[in-house]
Amino acid sequence: MILTGPDIAFEQARGRLTLQPFSGDRVQPNSYDLTLGPTLAYYTGDVLDTRAENPHREIEIPAEGFVLRPDRIYLGSSVEEIGSNHYVPIIRARSGAARLGVFVHVTADLIDIGSVGQCTFQLRAVEPVRVYAGDRLAQVTFWGVQGDIVLYDGKYQGSRGPQPSRIHQDAAAQVTA
Amino acid sequence: MILTGPDIAFEQARGRLTLQPFSGDRVQPNSYDLTLGPTLAYYTGDVLDTRAENPHREIEIPAEGFVLRPDRIYLGSSVEEIGSNHYVPIIRARSGAARLGVFVHVTADLIDIGSVGQCTFQLRAVEPVRVYAGDRLAQVTFWGVQGDIVLYDGKYQGSRGPQPSRIHQDAAAQVTA
Amino acid sequence: MILTGPDIAFEQARGRLTLQPFSGDRVQPNSYDLTLGPTLAYYTGDVLDTRAENPHREIEIPAEGFVLRPDRIYLGSSVEEIGSNHYVPIIRARSGAARLGVFVHVTADLIDIGSVGQCTFQLRAVEPVRVYAGDRLAQVTFWGVQGDIVLYDGKYQGSRGPQPSRIHQDAAAQVTA
Repeated sequence: MILTGPDIAFEQARGRLTLQPFSGDRVQPNSYDLTLGPTLAYYTGDVLDTRAENPHREIEIPAEGFVLRPDRIYLGSSVEEIGSNHYVPIIRARSGAARLGVFVHVTADLIDIGSVGQCTFQLRAVEPVRVYAGDRLAQVTFWGVQGDIVLYDGKYQGSRGPQPSRIHQDAAAQVTA
Repeated sequence: MILTGPDIAFEQARGRLTLQPFSGDRVQPNSYDLTLGPTLAYYTGDVLDTRAENPHREIEIPAEGFVLRPDRIYLGSSVEEIGSNHYVPIIRARSGAARLGVFVHVTADLIDIGSVGQCTFQLRAVEPVRVYAGDRLAQVTFWGVQGDIVLYDGKYQGSRGPQPSRIHQDAAAQVTA
Repeated sequence: MILTGPDIAFEQARGRLTLQPFSGDRVQPNSYDLTLGPTLAYYTGDVLDTRAENPHREIEIPAEGFVLRPDRIYLGSSVEEIGSNHYVPIIRARSGAARLGVFVHVTADLIDIGSVGQCTFQLRAVEPVRVYAGDRLAQVTFWGVQGDIVLYDGKYQGSRGPQPSRIHQDAAAQVTA
């Protein structure tokens, strides 16, 4: 089951989910709006590789906004810290961002139960789009679970700002295992 | 919980969700098929902007079909009116469309509870793809909720045809608030 | 409700869902990791068409990996056979793949209840990315249902390896109906 807006506010108030900072006017019928933080990251290599470390650069979005290029994957983050030890958060775009052709994730929308931090957005624009820090691009929904809960204790815990991929650590782990 | 196909048909029959027109052969094991309406919209500017109105143009899909260009975001709509005051609709591509590289949304898949209208598709093709009005590109699933329900009463209510982004109204609202 | 990792393992052990081969270290807090099989398929035509058969070619990923081109949709498959007669599987990318700009589906993430087989990935890379057979690119989640269950009995049942789109069979079915 997906939490309604009133239930998101209720569960936030009694500490069963994290939405920090919280503002009542961000509560939607079944979700909570998330805003784009000021920092973006992108990779500098010509060919990325799932089994190598991929160098990246960070930029700050200027006041006049920043134009996302369609041929590049950008990592951003939510201003808000989000998470829950009781529900599974799933992110998605707000309709207005998506109707401009801005993906806020690249099919990785689920946040593990027990993970808390600023959410990394995987931003991809179909056409060039100027975005601004503070844009309400995304929203988070919360979902009830079935079964015993084992909380997340992984490599992205407590994230602040955009976090590049660490998928190459999987291969290294397999080689040394 | 996600409704099964038989439950979608049952809830439609007793008026707890809207699927109009409804046809029993569109019911799938956990979803209902949606067809592409005759009108597409696309933006005419070179750089889109989350804080400006973005001019757009509408076209009718001719009988011989229309080729989606990979560098453009198209807005389409479902023939069907969909919605529910009791369940949350979430849209996705049918497998056959996705296997041709046609996205039917750009990470905005959730329809607010209480919103009723033709669904706006955010269409993006990885390679050029010819599509036709009436293609069964998408499907809608319905999800149970936890908590008190406050129905949607927002800016896209009662949509007919593809609706361009109104995200720039967020910024205007903040400036004047 | 979404199954927790412990419940995925429990339901797998008592035969209520298929994850084959199964390894306990692939269980995540709310999902199970899926690996990329050795075969990719892509279309050879310049313009794809929802109402025509679209010729395709298959390749084997070499040991040194294969670079996904951004202008092409690739079909891959999971090594694992997955499915359930009791829960609805939904796939998504692992975070590490998505943060490199690799989509593992093109908005078709839901697997019909009763469908069992290797899962077809719809792969699309925002930038060129080298991938390898065995990469843990994706994950599957399982969701509880409401209503009577009618099991899937469709055209992709028992899939092995990447399966190209058969959407053109819809149109043929309508013409002859």
